[in-house]
Amino acid sequence: MPFRAPLDDYRLILNDVVDFAQVTATDRFAEATPDMVDAILGEAGKMCEEVLAPLQRNGDTDPARLENGVVRTSRGFAEGYRAIAEGGWVAIAADPEHGGMGLPMAVTTCVNDMMSAACLALQLNPLMTQGQIEALEHHASDELKAIYLPKLVSGEWCGTMNLTEPQAGSDVGALTSKAEPNGDGTYAITGQKIYISWGDNDFSGNVCHLVLARLPGAAPGTKGISLFLVPKFIPDAQGNPGVANSLKVVSLEHKMGLHGSATCVMAYEGATGWLVGEQHDGMRAMFTMMNNARLGVGVQGIGVAEGAYQHALAYAQDRKQGRSPEGTIIGHADVRRMLATMKAETFAARAIALSLAVSIDMGNATDDPEWKARAALLTPIAKAFGTDTGIDVASLGVQVHGGMGYVEETGAAQYLRDVRVTAIYEGTNGIQAMDLVGRKLMDGGEAAFRLLDEIESFAETARATHPALAEPVWQAAETLRETVEALVASDMADRFAVAVPFLRGFARVLGAHFHLRAAVARPDSAASRLAAFYITRLLPEHVGLLAHARAGSDGLMEITPDDLAA
Amino acid sequence: MPFRAPLDDYRLILNDVVDFAQVTATDRFAEATPDMVDAILGEAGKMCEEVLAPLQRNGDTDPARLENGVVRTSRGFAEGYRAIAEGGWVAIAADPEHGGMGLPMAVTTCVNDMMSAACLALQLNPLMTQGQIEALEHHASDELKAIYLPKLVSGEWCGTMNLTEPQAGSDVGALTSKAEPNGDGTYAITGQKIYISWGDNDFSGNVCHLVLARLPGAAPGTKGISLFLVPKFIPDAQGNPGVANSLKVVSLEHKMGLHGSATCVMAYEGATGWLVGEQHDGMRAMFTMMNNARLGVGVQGIGVAEGAYQHALAYAQDRKQGRSPEGTIIGHADVRRMLATMKAETFAARAIALSLAVSIDMGNATDDPEWKARAALLTPIAKAFGTDTGIDVASLGVQVHGGMGYVEETGAAQYLRDVRVTAIYEGTNGIQAMDLVGRKLMDGGEAAFRLLDEIESFAETARATHPALAEPVWQAAETLRETVEALVASDMADRFAVAVPFLRGFARVLGAHFHLRAAVARPDSAASRLAAFYITRLLPEHVGLLAHARAGSDGLMEITPDDLAA
Repeated sequence: MPFRAPLDDYRLILNDVVDFAQVTATDRFAEATPDMVDAILGEAGKMCEEVLAPLQRNGDTDPARLENGVVRTSRGFAEGYRAIAEGGWVAIAADPEHGGMGLPMAVTTCVNDMMSAACLALQLNPLMTQGQIEALEHHASDELKAIYLPKLVSGEWCGTMNLTEPQAGSDVGALTSKAEPNGDGTYAITGQKIYISWGDNDFSGNVCHLVLARLPGAAPGTKGISLFLVPKFIPDAQGNPGVANSLKVVSLEHKMGLHGSATCVMAYEGATGWLVGEQHDGMRAMFTMMNNARLGVGVQGIGVAEGAYQHALAYAQDRKQGRSPEGTIIGHADVRRMLATMKAETFAARAIALSLAVSIDMGNATDDPEWKARAALLTPIAKAFGTDTGIDVASLGVQVHGGMGYVEETGAAQYLRDVRVTAIYEGTNGIQAMDLVGRKLMDGGEAAFRLLDEIESFAETARATHPALAEPVWQAAETLRETVEALVASDMADRFAVAVPFLRGFARVLGAHFHLRAAVARPDSAASRLAAFYITRLLPEHVGLLAHARAGSDGLMEITPDDLAA
Repeated sequence: MPFRAPLDDYRLILNDVVDFAQVTATDRFAEATPDMVDAILGEAGKMCEEVLAPLQRNGDTDPARLENGVVRTSRGFAEGYRAIAEGGWVAIAADPEHGGMGLPMAVTTCVNDMMSAACLALQLNPLMTQGQIEALEHHASDELKAIYLPKLVSGEWCGTMNLTEPQAGSDVGALTSKAEPNGDGTYAITGQKIYISWGDNDFSGNVCHLVLARLPGAAPGTKGISLFLVPKFIPDAQGNPGVANSLKVVSLEHKMGLHGSATCVMAYEGATGWLVGEQHDGMRAMFTMMNNARLGVGVQGIGVAEGAYQHALAYAQDRKQGRSPEGTIIGHADVRRMLATMKAETFAARAIALSLAVSIDMGNATDDPEWKARAALLTPIAKAFGTDTGIDVASLGVQVHGGMGYVEETGAAQYLRDVRVTAIYEGTNGIQAMDLVGRKLMDGGEAAFRLLDEIESFAETARATHPALAEPVWQAAETLRETVEALVASDMADRFAVAVPFLRGFARVLGAHFHLRAAVARPDSAASRLAAFYITRLLPEHVGLLAHARAGSDGLMEITPDDLAA
């Protein structure tokens, strides 16, 4: 069951659903012609199919381990990483000044998607580096940029993000790691960080850690946090890895999945670090990096959904049982329903992610605040819905396999175990939903209403040719509009209580809109039949979700801790 | 975070929600007075808390393994099993004639529930034996009964079920294992069986396998299947384990979870077996056993939901983070929402399961076909919704833990990995849904409509005191009634296409009915606040599910295998 890069799906969504043409119509991305994008995705797809996909099981059966303080990676991961780096796939969106290709985020998103589908554990490594590159591009001094960026972009060095501490998870402001000035412009970083993905490896020349810590006298909370670049090996005068820094991997976590990615407990013991951005302004730099990382993690979920889907489809086409015309279980209506659900949900999540990527590209190319607001609005939705879809689709993949799905040898269960963390890291999906109803509605709902105007306007036009699909999409958008109005008029306590069902209801409506666009663009096609399936059978879920979202906090906090323990 | 048996919940549901009093009002179960039931559940709870719960992690960290053809069980499991057997907990519903207590299925259900919550992997062992006892009670010869039943009921011997073969999973009729008459009344059984839960152990005196096989000249399909009892050791003249039979454990499956339960590939090589029931009538005997096993597996899901909930609640009450009044994450609205969802869903699934148990008891006590039809209707719902709830609640438990949920040491992930199989074994949840819309609506919906009459009638009465809760329950029941009417009027192809959303929508409405009953019985209580939460926030999901359920097969099978592979 070899993995096949879903190039046709990217083409369909980019060309007919999220209007990628407007990105290439800008000066900044004029070089990203359709032919060039096609060629790039084709090349990336080849690498994913031939090099990465065969490594997927190794991450699980031959996990990363800690030996004498050094992380030893899974069999074949070093070669896989080399293929990513040599192909230039670590950071194709990076600034050409430092060796990047300056390509749109939409193209990066497709490449990250297929790398995640092929081998999530290994793909997490360049995803971390991408975030670091972006943070350095925006906030580092020219001197740091000159030393680090070319090596990160080429993949010679890897990057990590160090936020979490044992007592400071979702509440980043509670962190206590310290940074003391050394008097020479560098800082001595001391503290323990946990959950550091790819905190070490045995295939890159250096591992560069971005570490949040507090300077002496810093304010409590998030306002007293600064960001430091702390390399494993301190670059020498020529910029080559020099003496070892005072940091170490203390242990690896024993996780439910993603065993190919070493999740490290890191100890910094007066390690030498360089300030990135201004003092006490570390959160702003982290947010630059986190926004795109949130898209990146959402896309991990979508990639795993793709991998799990292809895996289950191959099984269903091959598994002989029962007396259907096909002779295999794909002839059973319930198996067909599961597979169609998997494909339709993956399409919806992918279209949302690529729509976000286009918004980021348009914001970068035009500096238009409306595009930036659109990107900000879509970020938590793409992250949470992408990862929830990854989990739901992988679980359906297990179910399609029946008993074989619970047996590890088939690999179906690995998708589910691997992807489960994506709903937790990079801000739990609950945090994403709170971001959506809090920060992202602080404009009084303006960005949301603008998006709803587009959805309704498209549905109104589509009524002429696709009345049975356009009408429910229009109605759903109207229900979502009323819900946004209700949330905007309510206080934060009410909004936070219903943030998660609201986000999912929003994603349902968005997914329906993008399916409708596909159906209109390609009548009488597989895409239009899938759109009809989604709009008829999955879209109605929004009714319950948005009813929940309008319930506010009434009756929720009245369920006391004592009630819960009763 | 020690496990606490949820005795108050059992009391609430038995007394105020599913009218267990009508069971004890029958002659057959007159001895099961409220005091006696309370005492029994208290004793079982003590054993679960003190003996079984401490073994839960051992099943995962010290899995069952195959050594020289013999299964070695997890550390402490032998002692745990002894406590179950010596306490008389293997089969409290079994006929007193063979050493059972003849207690109602409702009491068994509570005991199975808390054993599953405490240690699912070990509980699966007596659950298999319970099914075997029931099959033998109904179908075995008096001679077989006399030899086997006392030892199975006492727990001295264990029982297993052998249905699946590599080419015959959900399609049991495709099995090819053979049974040849030996001429002395016994049969020589030959074939390979897979997915045999607890196919062997190192703590019981014998392992008795119920094996489906074909006699010479048997018809193809399910009509040519017979059932045989095939013990690991052939009982000698005194009924003690004698010579080893010609069967062996070939290998154990490497599964996603439930590592404490050995899932065996079994080879029968002319093994001596005894016919149970009539020739070629094995499926009928299997169905006797499977119906109650389906309730048993549904209850496994509910038990795990309970375990995962208590585990997550303890974490949330302890985890300091943020600035809520409580100082811990339980003060966050989204954490409160997750915990309330977990508790409300567990209540709904448990009430459905206990309502089914009461129906089984009433059917057994009165032989009333209406009670039997009610039990038949509720069986697939209890199995599928109970296990789906186990999975959903365990996944929420991981989410409440944040990053710690993905780290195996906390045990949150184990609940999710362990419970995932319950949606697959004992008939996948898709098969359950097909049973519901097929066989269980063959009465033209009569049993379903009778249940809906009760639900609406209760809601009508409750309107006087609880209008805000009673009205949505009545409306939801009406929508469900319309959906049942639509299904009854449609053909099987249409029904099978929507079976899964229909089952879940049905369960949603049932859950709301039972919550309403609790709210009416206990005004201004934790239960009534939880009911309001469920009815306001979770019940609305039925709208989307039942809309899907009314969509028939239109547009589903038109999504061709080629479309899916596009």
